Amino acid sequence: MGDQQQSPQYPTGIGTSDADRIYLLGHDLANDLLGKVGFGELALWLATQQRPTPQQTRVFEAVLVALADHGFTPTAIAARLTLYSAPDALQGAMAAGLLGGGSRYLGVTEDTGRFLAKTLASVKGALPTTDEEWDALARTAVASERAAGRYVPGLGHPVHKKDDPRTAVIIAIAEQEGLRGPHLRLFEAIGRTHAEILGRRLPLNGAGVCGAALADLGLPPELLRGVALLARTAGLLGHLAEELRRPIAPDIYYAVDRNAVYRPVTETDADAEQ
Amino acid sequence: MGDQQQSPQYPTGIGTSDADRIYLLGHDLANDLLGKVGFGELALWLATQQRPTPQQTRVFEAVLVALADHGFTPTAIAARLTLYSAPDALQGAMAAGLLGGGSRYLGVTEDTGRFLAKTLASVKGALPTTDEEWDALARTAVASERAAGRYVPGLGHPVHKKDDPRTAVIIAIAEQEGLRGPHLRLFEAIGRTHAEILGRRLPLNGAGVCGAALADLGLPPELLRGVALLARTAGLLGHLAEELRRPIAPDIYYAVDRNAVYRPVTETDADAEQ
Amino acid sequence: MGDQQQSPQYPTGIGTSDADRIYLLGHDLANDLLGKVGFGELALWLATQQRPTPQQTRVFEAVLVALADHGFTPTAIAARLTLYSAPDALQGAMAAGLLGGGSRYLGVTEDTGRFLAKTLASVKGALPTTDEEWDALARTAVASERAAGRYVPGLGHPVHKKDDPRTAVIIAIAEQEGLRGPHLRLFEAIGRTHAEILGRRLPLNGAGVCGAALADLGLPPELLRGVALLARTAGLLGHLAEELRRPIAPDIYYAVDRNAVYRPVTETDADAEQ
Amino acid sequence: MGDQQQSPQYPTGIGTSDADRIYLLGHDLANDLLGKVGFGELALWLATQQRPTPQQTRVFEAVLVALADHGFTPTAIAARLTLYSAPDALQGAMAAGLLGGGSRYLGVTEDTGRFLAKTLASVKGALPTTDEEWDALARTAVASERAAGRYVPGLGHPVHKKDDPRTAVIIAIAEQEGLRGPHLRLFEAIGRTHAEILGRRLPLNGAGVCGAALADLGLPPELLRGVALLARTAGLLGHLAEELRRPIAPDIYYAVDRNAVYRPVTETDADAEQ
Repeated sequence: MGDQQQSPQYPTGIGTSDADRIYLLGHDLANDLLGKVGFGELALWLATQQRPTPQQTRVFEAVLVALADHGFTPTAIAARLTLYSAPDALQGAMAAGLLGGGSRYLGVTEDTGRFLAKTLASVKGALPTTDEEWDALARTAVASERAAGRYVPGLGHPVHKKDDPRTAVIIAIAEQEGLRGPHLRLFEAIGRTHAEILGRRLPLNGAGVCGAALADLGLPPELLRGVALLARTAGLLGHLAEELRRPIAPDIYYAVDRNAVYRPVTETDADAEQ
Repeated sequence: MGDQQQSPQYPTGIGTSDADRIYLLGHDLANDLLGKVGFGELALWLATQQRPTPQQTRVFEAVLVALADHGFTPTAIAARLTLYSAPDALQGAMAAGLLGGGSRYLGVTEDTGRFLAKTLASVKGALPTTDEEWDALARTAVASERAAGRYVPGLGHPVHKKDDPRTAVIIAIAEQEGLRGPHLRLFEAIGRTHAEILGRRLPLNGAGVCGAALADLGLPPELLRGVALLARTAGLLGHLAEELRRPIAPDIYYAVDRNAVYRPVTETDADAEQ
Repeated sequence: MGDQQQSPQYPTGIGTSDADRIYLLGHDLANDLLGKVGFGELALWLATQQRPTPQQTRVFEAVLVALADHGFTPTAIAARLTLYSAPDALQGAMAAGLLGGGSRYLGVTEDTGRFLAKTLASVKGALPTTDEEWDALARTAVASERAAGRYVPGLGHPVHKKDDPRTAVIIAIAEQEGLRGPHLRLFEAIGRTHAEILGRRLPLNGAGVCGAALADLGLPPELLRGVALLARTAGLLGHLAEELRRPIAPDIYYAVDRNAVYRPVTETDADAEQ
Repeated sequence: MGDQQQSPQYPTGIGTSDADRIYLLGHDLANDLLGKVGFGELALWLATQQRPTPQQTRVFEAVLVALADHGFTPTAIAARLTLYSAPDALQGAMAAGLLGGGSRYLGVTEDTGRFLAKTLASVKGALPTTDEEWDALARTAVASERAAGRYVPGLGHPVHKKDDPRTAVIIAIAEQEGLRGPHLRLFEAIGRTHAEILGRRLPLNGAGVCGAALADLGLPPELLRGVALLARTAGLLGHLAEELRRPIAPDIYYAVDRNAVYRPVTETDADAEQ
């Protein structure tokens, strides 16, 4: 510490600018991108630093639309309460909403992508080509999770107990665009075969199929949560816009506060616990 | 507190679901929206709860693309440093990046939209229809800011000292789509006239023109920062994806730490200050 | 951009370390501070970089204790909901709780300190020395806020409509420690005189008296929100610890979700609005 | 959804208030706590809901002081950069600083506490009573981590390669206060024995000894990160106060921006990668 040194260099392929021009992803932002590239397309390009095809963009946007909102989730409520407390800092409310994007809610997309990628990586030789072969791989993977006492990610949904309506549609869009790749094929095979091993049929959920579709677009597992967060940002914009127009956070706060029951731990309780 | 009561009701127009279906903005998500609605389109719809036209969507997406990234901003650096410290929680790095979206950096879009809206609201009778009339309104508004010792928002840029390359392109796109409305017209008039009053010519900056264009889409000033944050989320996804592939945060940290100069306040200093 | 340069230097008086020692505020952390300096004392020292006296520490800790918790505030609820969504990242739940520390809830401490400091700065010549003189200054300041259509910060409380129980105690502690300075004196004078001007008597609230007491400790207004956030962090630790032992966030979430009423804006509504 | 229902009740032992009084942890805040309870003492009480003894408070405060700051960490830098971008929202800068409190930096305290607790829980029958018995348990635990290819948490430090100066002092304070319990004893035994198994001697680091000491105070592993975050909040208050007085964030930003090297991925690169 304290010895002044030459600064390191910081490489980036994202953006730079000079007095006359702004470059984004190696292109002239004003002349080559504005009005010519959609926002979803740009986001995928930023994530991969490879220009997406129209087919990739359509699947990616479908996934973003599928993940944008889930009604009054805990994260949407947290964002609205934060806006109520600190109306002068919308960025804080947005950030609070994203901070709930962890393992329990947004984690399924990432967990599913990671599980499928790991299973595919375990295949020695060529990947399956027929449904029968995919089913065999799926059976092995499900059985192995079960034996380890772990849940298979992407299976089951608290509300859509029979079928998650997003699943078949995302698969169909990927098929139309020629992007129904190995992650989706394996996920579908898990849907066909898991009941044999687990003893009951669960739906393939929407967050999981999104993880599979994103993995087939070439996104690595560690970025999938980031895509889900981008989608959720649009949903949070909707919740915060609605909160500004017609607030519910005060009612939520009063409902909790008025139904609070005060039960302080007394010194006697504490002694009893020891 | 403590009296158990009937719960209040919480109205929303965003989303809900039942066992078979997910509704978003009053539509069946799976059958009516997935693959049919773009992500930018959905975001604008969520913000306004009115279905955007293709023209509105094109302008909105151009604005999102214009605001998505500005290279190594303090917020992008903060997000990368946070990912380095807590690689297990990508949502924390995203949130940290958004938290810099306050008055100094992202504020220009909101401030410009607010200033233009306030100026338009001050007009008694019909809005201007000719460039001359817009120029007269602009002169009054600029002179009034100047007299109050305030900066005119949207004027000037630290790098693009002559012209911000985004400005003319955003205006042209709005014109193509029939959405060059009063906020943009007034902003352009400010561009034409401010030098007479301020004594030097400054460029209309890109963040400002985005605020004007969003206001002409009907978005209220208090939502403009939210739109800028959504745009920035895509940029942060790009920075965090790049950081995962080729990290620079460790080098930034070491550069700061090694060039730290330790100058503790001594008791003598403290006495001298008193 | 891109020309490699000598790194700037980064001065700090907080901390540094070498292989054998850690320095904090110019002292040897292990040998001079651990076990010898309290946590509140250290926090005040860090904020001012001047070693606090025992008297200053006692007032500062009383303020931190006064501001640590307010039951089920919106911020405590937001923190608990965030922990429920992302139980793997306690830092996200803490951060979400702090993000509500903005203008509406935690702002009073800062606003009061700022208002008192501004009023004192406006005094030409010597500060008042008698209650009568303080009252005269207070009357002028309250009348001036009223004339400007602004609320006087620190007056009034939604629950403690007659007296905030913290106010007299904080003033008494400051008096005991010889730290009842001009900010507290002026705040007390506002308490005595505001009813003459505003036409009704409001209590001096606890958040406001804390702002006055902190200002009398020499803390500048722009740091007062930071002190309130530190206090609140202890409260959030309590809420998150309780949430881990006996969760209520799931019940809050279900109560909101089950009482949601779905009222999407239809195309007809939208037409009607236009 | 939509069926209006009776509200659930929300139990809490932390705080409540009525028109005349504020209760915190079952006590009258104004009359029983202000000026009588220190801030560290209150924080420990909030975390456990059991009133701490003076001995417990002294150990707890020593740990908070030990963890409060580590100079220009990535999290301190991120907080300063966030304040520079959004100076109007100090809460955002604080939150950004806490969000780096994840696995890499603040995780050691939690990981060490968890590892020690797990090892103690594995003991059948009575815990060791002599150094020889503790050493035997430590050898088994270290060997088992090594066999599993995992690092032993709390061992080693990037700067304090020989000894972390905090370690012996924290142990001595716990000893003085009669709180050198099984977690600390086991941690010390790991310090004595690990070199036999790992082949080289590493220091017991300060973050690890703090985890052991907190576990001996009865705090569960899932709260240890929260305690570290509270400590860090005081450090961040110091960094942000210093940044307000003498900013370095602009220099950090310019140093990164000026040393950026723009290397966009070209279409050719992308083809080559495929």
